[in-house]
Amino acid sequence: MRTLEWEDNKLKLIDQTKLPDELTYVYCSNYKQVITAIKDMIVRGAPAIGVSAAFGMALAQLAGEDMEKVAVEMKNARPTAVNLMWAVDRVMKAENMLDEALEMAREDINTNLAIGEYGAELIDDGDTVLTHCNAGALACVDYGTALGVFRSAFNQGKNIQVICDETRPRGQGASLSVWEMQQEGIPVKLIPDVASGYLMSIGKIDKVVIGADRVAHDGIANKIGSFMVALAAKRFDIPFYVAAPISTFDKEISIFDTEIEERDPNEVIYYGGARICPEGTEVINPAFDIVPKDLITGVITEKGVFDLNNLEKDFKELF
Amino acid sequence: MRTLEWEDNKLKLIDQTKLPDELTYVYCSNYKQVITAIKDMIVRGAPAIGVSAAFGMALAQLAGEDMEKVAVEMKNARPTAVNLMWAVDRVMKAENMLDEALEMAREDINTNLAIGEYGAELIDDGDTVLTHCNAGALACVDYGTALGVFRSAFNQGKNIQVICDETRPRGQGASLSVWEMQQEGIPVKLIPDVASGYLMSIGKIDKVVIGADRVAHDGIANKIGSFMVALAAKRFDIPFYVAAPISTFDKEISIFDTEIEERDPNEVIYYGGARICPEGTEVINPAFDIVPKDLITGVITEKGVFDLNNLEKDFKELF
Repeated sequence: MRTLEWEDNKLKLIDQTKLPDELTYVYCSNYKQVITAIKDMIVRGAPAIGVSAAFGMALAQLAGEDMEKVAVEMKNARPTAVNLMWAVDRVMKAENMLDEALEMAREDINTNLAIGEYGAELIDDGDTVLTHCNAGALACVDYGTALGVFRSAFNQGKNIQVICDETRPRGQGASLSVWEMQQEGIPVKLIPDVASGYLMSIGKIDKVVIGADRVAHDGIANKIGSFMVALAAKRFDIPFYVAAPISTFDKEISIFDTEIEERDPNEVIYYGGARICPEGTEVINPAFDIVPKDLITGVITEKGVFDLNNLEKDFKELF
Repeated sequence: MRTLEWEDNKLKLIDQTKLPDELTYVYCSNYKQVITAIKDMIVRGAPAIGVSAAFGMALAQLAGEDMEKVAVEMKNARPTAVNLMWAVDRVMKAENMLDEALEMAREDINTNLAIGEYGAELIDDGDTVLTHCNAGALACVDYGTALGVFRSAFNQGKNIQVICDETRPRGQGASLSVWEMQQEGIPVKLIPDVASGYLMSIGKIDKVVIGADRVAHDGIANKIGSFMVALAAKRFDIPFYVAAPISTFDKEISIFDTEIEERDPNEVIYYGGARICPEGTEVINPAFDIVPKDLITGVITEKGVFDLNNLEKDFKELF
């Protein structure tokens, strides 16, 4: 299942706002459509956003746009996504941005396969594993990071059970991660977000693997709610892993300096088309939170697994 | 706003499944209708369930039913609600169960007013306070426990801001607690459940007050998700209070022996009338979780505030 593909000089994207009920596609023939797709979460997930942005830049170059201006616009589509910045900077250095975007798509798939291999070594036969949000094929070009780890473990013949939490407000765990696991035939169950701590307390979860929008020397930024899952895992000494490509690493900042965007209040107010609260309700809707490194057992990358609390060399010199 | 009332030989209940869009009532003229109302959460919240059950018993007595049999049926309506047991046992000792139920309704209101007074002393002018689920007037006969604390603080002229989390799967925080605070003119905001830890991490929450379905010497049982809120509060040294009447106390058990009921998977699968996950999704939907006493700053009762970690006398001898 390819989340994004270059086809007939257009960027073809699975419309993730229509899943799991319909598998439909959106075609972007200019860069502004790509920005809209990123903002509206037709495409979401750090790696998929990065590669989509690269194709968006390629579309702009083919149309003869002012690339410096386009680069700024593209980076503003989702300010927290560090590999959106990385992807835009990378294609800006290339002569032929389309060739570079195609290369990035190939690399993304290979990166995820490597993350899956390293991560699968951490998963034991019989494990029940929890994930938050969707760090799956749908978040990438293909295969996925956190869900790629589960795919690899399952493909190795390990008997695993995946638990996806719903991931309010947008419910990507319920709508996307459950769907992806079902497509693979991997046993999967859905829980409300609030239930993971309880399930950990009664020994029903062996490991947690989530994705990340950004990894720094002192922690990671990921979908809102990741922090509370990590806190509960720590309480019960349950290994908590972050699966993320090196493109997500930001060596310059403290993770606590991450700008946390607030999203549309209507994401909270309406769900399944219905209003869930009284009219005129005020909302706080932060998109991300921070998991400090003391709560993270390891970061699974395409170059191996790293414990931020116990690095062999300085974070800045890791790669 | 009376949640339940004896009127024309019937138990009149606000239909809480219709809030916040419609304020409508359900009338129970026999005990089986009361059991259905408890099971279907037309009435919910520990104290309201208890007093409703007492009126249900009175209806059965007036109809000449076999009261021993009815008592067992009534207690099975929601096995985790300890003051459902307490209420049924209490009316079973009375000659005239209707008089006893009416007395219990009066006591409940006075109890909540006292909880409100003790609790308000813990809330400072300018505080932003978080609550989970609905421990409000709608959970009681009137006034509420956790929300009663906020009502009292507000009525004392303290400038407070209430944050309600949504409380998936049934969303009582969004639909009921937000609505109650709006009715009182108390400033209130709604957040997704997953966001409370983040807001605590950036200093946006000063105190947490929740209700309880059961209080024991070593912790409390309350709506699923309470545990994760408590864990986050502990991490940031934010006072975490439980507001609960003494009828909720169970002196005989360890809180970890509480039977946690699993509720209907459709509560998770459907929201706002829409299916949020693929067809055929399996679900785990526990109703409650446990907050161990090390995470609880104090339990606010009608007889004062108690720290379970530091009691003046043995829990069994408290009252």
